[in-house]
Amino acid sequence: MKSILIIMAMEDEASPLVNSLELKNENRLHNIYSIKKFSGKYKDLNINLITNGTCSRYNVDSIGTQVSTLSAHLGIENFSPNLILNAGTAGGFHKDNAKIGDVYLSSPYVCYHDRRIELPKFDKYGIGFYPCFPAEDMAMELGLRLGVVSTGNSLDYTEKDLALMISYNGVVKDMEAAAIAWVAEQHQIPFLAIKAITDIVDGDKPTEKEFVQNLKFASGVLSEKTIKIIDYLSANSF
Amino acid sequence: MKSILIIMAMEDEASPLVNSLELKNENRLHNIYSIKKFSGKYKDLNINLITNGTCSRYNVDSIGTQVSTLSAHLGIENFSPNLILNAGTAGGFHKDNAKIGDVYLSSPYVCYHDRRIELPKFDKYGIGFYPCFPAEDMAMELGLRLGVVSTGNSLDYTEKDLALMISYNGVVKDMEAAAIAWVAEQHQIPFLAIKAITDIVDGDKPTEKEFVQNLKFASGVLSEKTIKIIDYLSANSF
Repeated sequence: MKSILIIMAMEDEASPLVNSLELKNENRLHNIYSIKKFSGKYKDLNINLITNGTCSRYNVDSIGTQVSTLSAHLGIENFSPNLILNAGTAGGFHKDNAKIGDVYLSSPYVCYHDRRIELPKFDKYGIGFYPCFPAEDMAMELGLRLGVVSTGNSLDYTEKDLALMISYNGVVKDMEAAAIAWVAEQHQIPFLAIKAITDIVDGDKPTEKEFVQNLKFASGVLSEKTIKIIDYLSANSF
Repeated sequence: MKSILIIMAMEDEASPLVNSLELKNENRLHNIYSIKKFSGKYKDLNINLITNGTCSRYNVDSIGTQVSTLSAHLGIENFSPNLILNAGTAGGFHKDNAKIGDVYLSSPYVCYHDRRIELPKFDKYGIGFYPCFPAEDMAMELGLRLGVVSTGNSLDYTEKDLALMISYNGVVKDMEAAAIAWVAEQHQIPFLAIKAITDIVDGDKPTEKEFVQNLKFASGVLSEKTIKIIDYLSANSF
């Protein structure tokens, strides 16, 4: 039986999907870290979903690339998945005609916009260009959008971040995908990011307000589309 | 016998210390990742040193916070250290009167300057404020400097990075310490960063040139001072 590992950062992003797939949270993934696991079967697939859990010091969801690196490593070690999906919310761009609730699949790669290392070869290492599972057919069949997902550890961005995003045509701005993609690449496990838009990066509303306002709606759409993606994967070989 | 884990990002930073401590590189730390380990005994201590190894895709040393998170996790899992030292090179500040080759001990904490999350409680989570092993006496006895080490994934910085660094009095700018300190804190293992200055952040020379020019000199000083720190730790309880 094939196995899919779904990695999500925040509890509020994950809960509609956990509920819809009837995944069970039976025990901890690791005795030290707060990372949570939810497991179940869906059609002919083993589904394991992990979230980064809560930071006990600040009592917030653990977000960002560092904890996500660890989640990816521990998830792979525990579940030996055939495919890794990073499902989450993200920022979209008015210039790409993104709307709140649009869902993008990462294609053809995910990159970092906040690792600027102006030394020979290190510059490309910093950006990463981690390849993604080919998703063109899936996007067409399911009516989803395609684009380069760009990762950084800040909710906002600087002019330098934006310049780097433009250089590789980044159209979705998130805070985890590249970190997970890098770990997946080390293990040679196919990786795909699924990102539902909560805010318009180059719009006129402050990101932090737009994000909070649209998180519930976007997470619902994210759950619905992710199930359609799993249905598609179940019906097609991967 | 007590055990110290030393985590270093680059091979060129590590090799003087590996040679001086006569550490042996006998096998790999993990069958997937490029992370290297070097082990030995020094006085009454077990010493394990790991470097992030080489990124096979871009053929450069793996640097930054994501791979360092994994190095810290795997290092702790393999060696159960009593103390973690993150030794490396870093940028210093003219306004703190830093000179090339100065060595700082992290105190009282290490922070991130590139995780800006303007949501309640997430703002502090982003910065991190990870506590460090008390090093005041050590610094006085060994003639080392003390200060907040500030971590980000770029060799350069933006005005926003600088503003955040100033807000918590960051005086050393590196690319790994906070990531390692976070993992150490999860395991409740004391952590200390040792940073030798290769370039002056607020000086008039481009960081990338100054860094390359001074890497060998600073790594030599770093090795010398790290051995004095281990001597101190061996002579005093920790």
